[in-house]
Amino acid sequence: MKQLEEKQLTTKEYYKNSFLKVTEDDIQLPNDKQAKRVVVHHPGGVNLIALDEHQRLILVEQYRYPVKKATLETPAGKIEPGEATIVTAKRELEEETGYTCETLTMIGRFATSPGFCDEYIENFLATNLKKLDYEVAGDEDEFINLYHVTKEEALTLIEEGRICDFKTIYAIQYLIIHHQW
Amino acid sequence: MKQLEEKQLTTKEYYKNSFLKVTEDDIQLPNDKQAKRVVVHHPGGVNLIALDEHQRLILVEQYRYPVKKATLETPAGKIEPGEATIVTAKRELEEETGYTCETLTMIGRFATSPGFCDEYIENFLATNLKKLDYEVAGDEDEFINLYHVTKEEALTLIEEGRICDFKTIYAIQYLIIHHQW
Repeated sequence: MKQLEEKQLTTKEYYKNSFLKVTEDDIQLPNDKQAKRVVVHHPGGVNLIALDEHQRLILVEQYRYPVKKATLETPAGKIEPGEATIVTAKRELEEETGYTCETLTMIGRFATSPGFCDEYIENFLATNLKKLDYEVAGDEDEFINLYHVTKEEALTLIEEGRICDFKTIYAIQYLIIHHQW
Repeated sequence: MKQLEEKQLTTKEYYKNSFLKVTEDDIQLPNDKQAKRVVVHHPGGVNLIALDEHQRLILVEQYRYPVKKATLETPAGKIEPGEATIVTAKRELEEETGYTCETLTMIGRFATSPGFCDEYIENFLATNLKKLDYEVAGDEDEFINLYHVTKEEALTLIEEGRICDFKTIYAIQYLIIHHQW
């Protein structure tokens, strides 16, 4: 087995906003040669797998500027500094869907693109959903449409490319494997 | 249904290397207010789902500097400019695993993190694998270990956090759902 570790030598910051930072580091390879590594630093996020009372998956439609289209995705959100991920998960569910839940179970924590980014998403299964009888104030500049879809509708949305991101595909496959969806 | 589209007003580049670029754009929201959007521009990649002659999944162990650990992932690689993704897929399979295949089937194209990044990964199912009797020259500064794992071993590696990225989890779920793995 080859030794694989890469050691940081220097780091330089190129970009920073309220949640994201980009650095380029000089590193030492296992063969003692040097190389550069770009790292996109991200606080991480939560992903919510939530079935309503009719066993339909709750999805959020929103414009995703980087991919230049509106997509349907499982409700999700970035982790705030110092916040427990289960708190993020509950808040995002309530703000984005108008539902709350009795139980949130963390079912897996996965990196989105570990070759250049440190983002991990924690995936929560939300069960015993209840519709809120009041509106939770979200971000006023967040524009979303809500969908509740059956398994068959979800599979059609994948075919059509309207569901097109890994965390949502993961959620659908998880339900098929573990919840006889 | 709310109108969702965001329109680009300006763009400014903050970082660029051989494969990745970071810009921050001023955009116009559906309510005509303005906002900023960071975009990490990535050429996209391919992901290979390859079972060997004993129905074991081929995985690559490599150090992932952004997440500061060695991970086990499905073989993958970045798309070169102008290259057909099926060509990328075949080359990455041969270079990283020492196997070639008779058939490559594109089974889905998913964004890794559409909130800030335009990266899509095309997922290929590689079938009728054959071991190459010669070594394909890869990147000399690429340090990898190869694994062939059963479904049970894959599930244990997920539990242990050594398999920890969405494209590899997707591959395992895909095999369980579509190949009775």
